[in-house]
Amino acid sequence: MAQVVQMEVEASLKHVNGAMAEIFSRDFDPTAVVSEPLPPVVAEENGGLVKIIAESEMESESEREIVLGKNVHTTCLAVTEPEANDEFTGDKEAYMAGVLARYRKTLVERTKHHLGYPYNLDFDYGALGQLQHFSINNLGDPFIESNYGVHSRQFEVGVLDWFARLWEIEKDEYWGYITNCGTEGNLHGILVGREVFPDGILYASKESHYSVFKAARMYRMECVKVDTLMSGEIDCADFKVKLLAHKDKPAIINVNIGTTVKGAVDDLDLVIQTLEESGFKHDCFYIHCDGALFGLMMPFVKRAPKVSFKKPIGSVSVSGHKFVGCPMPCGVQITRMEHINALSRNVEYLASRDATIMGSRNGHAPLFLWYTLNRKGYKGFQKEVQKCLRNAHYLKDRLRGVGISAMLNELSSTVVFERPQDEEFVRKWQLACQGNIAHVVVMPSVNIDKLDDFLNELVEHRSTWYEGGKAQAPCIAADIGTENCCCSLHK
Amino acid sequence: MAQVVQMEVEASLKHVNGAMAEIFSRDFDPTAVVSEPLPPVVAEENGGLVKIIAESEMESESEREIVLGKNVHTTCLAVTEPEANDEFTGDKEAYMAGVLARYRKTLVERTKHHLGYPYNLDFDYGALGQLQHFSINNLGDPFIESNYGVHSRQFEVGVLDWFARLWEIEKDEYWGYITNCGTEGNLHGILVGREVFPDGILYASKESHYSVFKAARMYRMECVKVDTLMSGEIDCADFKVKLLAHKDKPAIINVNIGTTVKGAVDDLDLVIQTLEESGFKHDCFYIHCDGALFGLMMPFVKRAPKVSFKKPIGSVSVSGHKFVGCPMPCGVQITRMEHINALSRNVEYLASRDATIMGSRNGHAPLFLWYTLNRKGYKGFQKEVQKCLRNAHYLKDRLRGVGISAMLNELSSTVVFERPQDEEFVRKWQLACQGNIAHVVVMPSVNIDKLDDFLNELVEHRSTWYEGGKAQAPCIAADIGTENCCCSLHK
Repeated sequence: MAQVVQMEVEASLKHVNGAMAEIFSRDFDPTAVVSEPLPPVVAEENGGLVKIIAESEMESESEREIVLGKNVHTTCLAVTEPEANDEFTGDKEAYMAGVLARYRKTLVERTKHHLGYPYNLDFDYGALGQLQHFSINNLGDPFIESNYGVHSRQFEVGVLDWFARLWEIEKDEYWGYITNCGTEGNLHGILVGREVFPDGILYASKESHYSVFKAARMYRMECVKVDTLMSGEIDCADFKVKLLAHKDKPAIINVNIGTTVKGAVDDLDLVIQTLEESGFKHDCFYIHCDGALFGLMMPFVKRAPKVSFKKPIGSVSVSGHKFVGCPMPCGVQITRMEHINALSRNVEYLASRDATIMGSRNGHAPLFLWYTLNRKGYKGFQKEVQKCLRNAHYLKDRLRGVGISAMLNELSSTVVFERPQDEEFVRKWQLACQGNIAHVVVMPSVNIDKLDDFLNELVEHRSTWYEGGKAQAPCIAADIGTENCCCSLHK
Repeated sequence: MAQVVQMEVEASLKHVNGAMAEIFSRDFDPTAVVSEPLPPVVAEENGGLVKIIAESEMESESEREIVLGKNVHTTCLAVTEPEANDEFTGDKEAYMAGVLARYRKTLVERTKHHLGYPYNLDFDYGALGQLQHFSINNLGDPFIESNYGVHSRQFEVGVLDWFARLWEIEKDEYWGYITNCGTEGNLHGILVGREVFPDGILYASKESHYSVFKAARMYRMECVKVDTLMSGEIDCADFKVKLLAHKDKPAIINVNIGTTVKGAVDDLDLVIQTLEESGFKHDCFYIHCDGALFGLMMPFVKRAPKVSFKKPIGSVSVSGHKFVGCPMPCGVQITRMEHINALSRNVEYLASRDATIMGSRNGHAPLFLWYTLNRKGYKGFQKEVQKCLRNAHYLKDRLRGVGISAMLNELSSTVVFERPQDEEFVRKWQLACQGNIAHVVVMPSVNIDKLDDFLNELVEHRSTWYEGGKAQAPCIAADIGTENCCCSLHK
């Protein structure tokens, strides 16, 4: 079956092939265009193709392969060629308006039930709607004006200064930019570390974000995974053992200011102390702080290990769409000017002072951040952090109260608990899961009412999953510790 | 002077330092927050700091360093802490509304005079304004649904299918995603190439986009620069010499479908032929096509070397904010499924099918693209390409008509001409310059009226630059060829 479709497709494409052989000649008329701009359809739109996918899925279920989602090409909203009479009938406009209205409704519904990802969905950027019609692009360096005039560098630098103040580094000593996401921040921080120490070894706890290991692979760096404690924090005893085994090479360390799954905050001070105790002088290590979520929360939490450039760290990154809240992903990256100068000298042959990972850069993100930071201020964020931590405690206490295994790290608003048995329920509340655990990240957009709705529904469903004690909730002590586990053995 | 400010800053920060030493203890109250959330100001806001920068600029004018723009911290729009009574007075709201209104006016003005960058500024996404209030994020793979429900994968896959059809690859044979910009596409394509051929050498013409060389550096790849012809196209004679010198290693080739400065289109067919003639079999090379701008124009130009997956290419990237037009940078990346499967097997230890460069991904960009592709269709793009090529010819002819050196490659809408002598004029029209040349990229948003305004102003200014023949326009034959140069020697 698959082969038949394939052959048909090849046949239908053959006639195009001939045209390609035409020679690129000097008497070319640049206003001439191809007579038929519509490329042939590459496969039967529905029946045939979907069958192919379904078959290959059945055949290779055990094999680990990226297979297209089951009906991904049929459930997707295909782009269709406008009809000649669309302008008169308005049919296409009407169709598109309908699609968008339905989509908007889905977004409202899904936003309402969202609990699992650390995104603050509570924002109002109505005042910025007037700027959506411009192609705002901060290509290149935020501090070097480009000839492209439609940019927002004046806002971007204002935002960077705000973060520089938060992380205690002077305006003329830092360099930074607004990134596309937390991953870009990690890619940048680790790249700067590698440029400072070309033969450095990257150390990261095994609960670090996957982008850290992606960076090691991309950059062809030696990478050493460090164990974690039950909380998810880096295990500095293991870190020391591994440092001592590689004393001959500089260390580049990724420190998690909030791990992805358990929201654990690595103890920056203990990491630095461990480096010093292992004989690593300050000119032999580079620390990148991945503060994707908690980078903006920790400064407002008393006794949290402070992220500050007054300590020997090289860079900090934080996401903008997480605690701040933003329609699209973005982030902030701050590093020391001296490192960027080193990087810049190395790239001189490019004839460009290109120190960012990306080239063209979204100029709307700085506007969103500038707007929110101005409205909330440091004090506003403090209040929100307080509220989130309070609500996270409420959730953890209520879960434990009804006998559900749950853990909450003390500097965190990420509540880890037993994975619900029903995938439908997981999908509805958009919970992020790993193995036997799931988590809820309590963000400013998550209030007590929402948590109560979630809890009531969870308790109700749970009574059917573990009906009359016939089945039992799994033990998750290995993930969250015996003191947090409510299984029949540990409760 | 600098030192005095520095010392004051250090003194003002000392009192914070003490607090940091507090030990992270187990009786921590998570709802407790720091008593004073405002970090101290790190430097005197105005006088002092700016002086430091100005001084260092004067001292090291010859030294190549990244120095902050002259008044970048004073001209930037600082984020300020809200006053306690702001809610009652509305002062801050009024201030911000004023800033945004002024900014909007600047954007209107700058958009009107923009000529130098290949961005189509002519779009109307009013219908999508209703979606700006959602945090839409297509994190991870477009074809693997994440638990985060507020996404736009159904639109993204529709857009990808449209491009797959354009570049002639079947739905079940390609993999792709919507990127943040052209650079991300190049980073991805070259990374896939490197994963397919870990010891491959990267070949790229010296007029390739700087992100190609950035990739080589990031990925620690051996990179060979190939000469270009006067047009800016890759010189396949030189390419052959360099291939033959490295026959022992696989080749990864970046092919430019439109170079940044001259808009030159590398001859894909000739590149493939050169590879074959040099003894490189199809399983010994990987071609990435950087189609940032022209990737979407060439398919509609007769006789242009066709970009097609029916040829032995590995990946194609194109920008979304260029020919399509989009408020923020974005791009489309298409590669072969088989390559991604290889990549994915290699990253298995990540426990993630992570095949994109970024993690969180802007879910609004697919909506913008989906909307425009649906409205214009292949036929609409064809018309716009025709218009742009026609207008580019008009500009080149008029420039030459008044005796200004100018070049236009036959498959291009990028008109290269003598660099204007007045930086004010360059800034007003936002021309991209390199050495003695500047260019205008004729996009759908550039009409004849705009070109006439530009031309008239250029001619007027030029008469003062080269007043009465006292000074002479420079010879730019080395950049654009003697036949295009109108200097006193070549005209």
